[in-house]
Amino acid sequence: MALIVQKYGGTSVGSVERIKNVAKRVAKWRAAGHDVVVVVSAMSGETNRLMGLAKEIQPIPDPRELDQVASTGEQVTIGLAAMALQAIGQKAKSYTGAQVRILTDNAYGKARIISIDEERIRRDLKDGNVVIVAGFQGVDETGATTTLGRGGSDTTGVALAAALKADECQIYTDVDGVYTTDPRIVPEARRLHTVTFEEMLEMASLGSKVLQIRSVEFAGKYKVRLRVLSSLTDPMIPVEEEFASGTLITFEEDPTMAMEKAVISGVAFARDEAKITVHDVPDRPGIAYAILGPIADAKIDVDVIVQNVGHDGMTDLSFTVGRADYAKAMKILKDRVQPHIKCRDVTGDDKIAKVSLVGLGMRSHVGIASQMFRTLAEEGINIQMITTSEIKISVVLDEKYMELAVRVLHKAFELDQA
Amino acid sequence: MALIVQKYGGTSVGSVERIKNVAKRVAKWRAAGHDVVVVVSAMSGETNRLMGLAKEIQPIPDPRELDQVASTGEQVTIGLAAMALQAIGQKAKSYTGAQVRILTDNAYGKARIISIDEERIRRDLKDGNVVIVAGFQGVDETGATTTLGRGGSDTTGVALAAALKADECQIYTDVDGVYTTDPRIVPEARRLHTVTFEEMLEMASLGSKVLQIRSVEFAGKYKVRLRVLSSLTDPMIPVEEEFASGTLITFEEDPTMAMEKAVISGVAFARDEAKITVHDVPDRPGIAYAILGPIADAKIDVDVIVQNVGHDGMTDLSFTVGRADYAKAMKILKDRVQPHIKCRDVTGDDKIAKVSLVGLGMRSHVGIASQMFRTLAEEGINIQMITTSEIKISVVLDEKYMELAVRVLHKAFELDQA
Repeated sequence: MALIVQKYGGTSVGSVERIKNVAKRVAKWRAAGHDVVVVVSAMSGETNRLMGLAKEIQPIPDPRELDQVASTGEQVTIGLAAMALQAIGQKAKSYTGAQVRILTDNAYGKARIISIDEERIRRDLKDGNVVIVAGFQGVDETGATTTLGRGGSDTTGVALAAALKADECQIYTDVDGVYTTDPRIVPEARRLHTVTFEEMLEMASLGSKVLQIRSVEFAGKYKVRLRVLSSLTDPMIPVEEEFASGTLITFEEDPTMAMEKAVISGVAFARDEAKITVHDVPDRPGIAYAILGPIADAKIDVDVIVQNVGHDGMTDLSFTVGRADYAKAMKILKDRVQPHIKCRDVTGDDKIAKVSLVGLGMRSHVGIASQMFRTLAEEGINIQMITTSEIKISVVLDEKYMELAVRVLHKAFELDQA
Repeated sequence: MALIVQKYGGTSVGSVERIKNVAKRVAKWRAAGHDVVVVVSAMSGETNRLMGLAKEIQPIPDPRELDQVASTGEQVTIGLAAMALQAIGQKAKSYTGAQVRILTDNAYGKARIISIDEERIRRDLKDGNVVIVAGFQGVDETGATTTLGRGGSDTTGVALAAALKADECQIYTDVDGVYTTDPRIVPEARRLHTVTFEEMLEMASLGSKVLQIRSVEFAGKYKVRLRVLSSLTDPMIPVEEEFASGTLITFEEDPTMAMEKAVISGVAFARDEAKITVHDVPDRPGIAYAILGPIADAKIDVDVIVQNVGHDGMTDLSFTVGRADYAKAMKILKDRVQPHIKCRDVTGDDKIAKVSLVGLGMRSHVGIASQMFRTLAEEGINIQMITTSEIKISVVLDEKYMELAVRVLHKAFELDQA
């Protein structure tokens, strides 16, 4: 008998029918002898509706009051979910973040969890209840409601699993796991049975938005076993079958997992990037800060940064930003940085994409990078920038080649083979 | 400088525009130097929407979980109202019932207030805040959210006013006070500047649904000065003018009020009633219980009860019930009571109405009843039943004469004259 925390997102509880399906699924796990704690998000659309009301009243809503309003979305869902379980004969009790007590700091809208009082949950589980907890929210020391930021329900699930020392935290969503790449681009893309936390982090940051990065980090830190599952399957499929479905996110240290790992886990990609190059800047200390400092001050996120070895005391520095920030970043560089550092030119291209190979196995395998570059060269795809990390090789290329690059890499590294 | 508790109902906060109007009105009172605590209901329609969702999931929703869901309606409004005040430069903070801490028993859906911790509110007022509290809700000893039952926001307002020893509790609603009768029936109906608690109770129970009865009783018990005001007036009308508007509900003991009191305060009425008569029952102890006990057991509310002196050891007992309960009550009497008590017959009429004169002054004035009966007789209106209390005379008559009766009584007692 395991203790399982299940988290259902907004789409999974988006209607009365879907809430009833969630109840059936949860009751099935309970009937199989497991203790179940359920974390739910607001019904899809509800948080946006509440945010919209707030902004109509105060264009930049007061953070404390916005959390007071926004947290009601999940509170509705927990009550409805508890009723749905009771309606099919399963005892259930709901708790808001404040009622649990999920204590957070008072950074309204993006609060961090400080501690969780799990005693009440344990008592209710012992009494045969399914316990339903509102995701995305907590309470600060003064008793004010806080929210963990959008998507924070995943974090609630993982934090509860850690506090309860649960056997597994199951994140139900509208996809059935993590894939080798996006099946819309490569129909042969395969669901990964397991993926390591580190790979997951790289995948998530590169566009495979299955889980919130923060919850994955959190799970890694507290060694919570995390599984991504689909809430769109028949809720009554056998528990054993469901245990084997989805993607399990594991610790690298787990030797049984490491043995069966492929070298490469997936091909990730990001559209909507733009590339900027600052040409012929003096190759001296502080120059990177002189260029990127004003960009950071303007709250523009910089992704890839590449600076090659210099020549004749000069060097080029290139980096990528989100496409929406491209014009703003170019203006800052032209108006404020170029006159100051006296570089030759600032050029840019907002029609680029980033494609990455991700795989823990590449650490112990040589030749991955060269195989990647050869594969792209054979298709005539020019590589504009390259960066590498321990478990990832990213290339920046012309946006129009993105899908092709993903497909040929997926095939070259045999990701379509189990 | 006064401490004022203002309560705004669902219609008054039914849209973003109306919430902004509430904020303007509240800020005006605050700018005039008064401390203001605001109690708000859910936006109109919201509680019904939430109840509807719950019933789709569980036909008879679990009371604890229903309160968890239903209480979110007010929580949204308090946050929005605080934002609306801040948006016009007035400091404001919102609290749910649990956050205040309004401690209640655990009778979910109809909880009673046990105590209110007003310390936090006093501190916030001192800091220059308007404090906004969610109506209709509290928290039980276990930390579970409770609701006071529908319309319970009035009770929250009065209870807060009592706890804070506020100078006045102002109930803003979509009517501008208590009238001598319904202006839709008698266009000359006048707004009463003052009405006593006892009159208000009689008026409320007879259909002038301006205030929840329970909140009026509560105000009477704790001697809270209660004023009914319109939230539909221009929010920027001068504070002095607003103080003089509406209807002030006073204690009878207040001599300045008693002096100017008219004999009769108003004509109340109730439609949708039905009359039942049990004929020729043995005139002996226990007979009223034998008849009305089974009715009460079936949770049918009985209003007027009339039993005249008997004749030849027999008597008739008549009473009224809500029209919706008429068929059920008749069936109980025919099937279960008549065979048992051996009365001659049970007859009924579901086309009746009740019209009442209410006035504290009638206690010290003779001839009110006879003047009432004469007025009705002159119009050829037959009186079917009569009951009287200290400050009320009620008659039951054929429904079709109701409006006429209200009009002629209103005129006969000169209620149209200031």
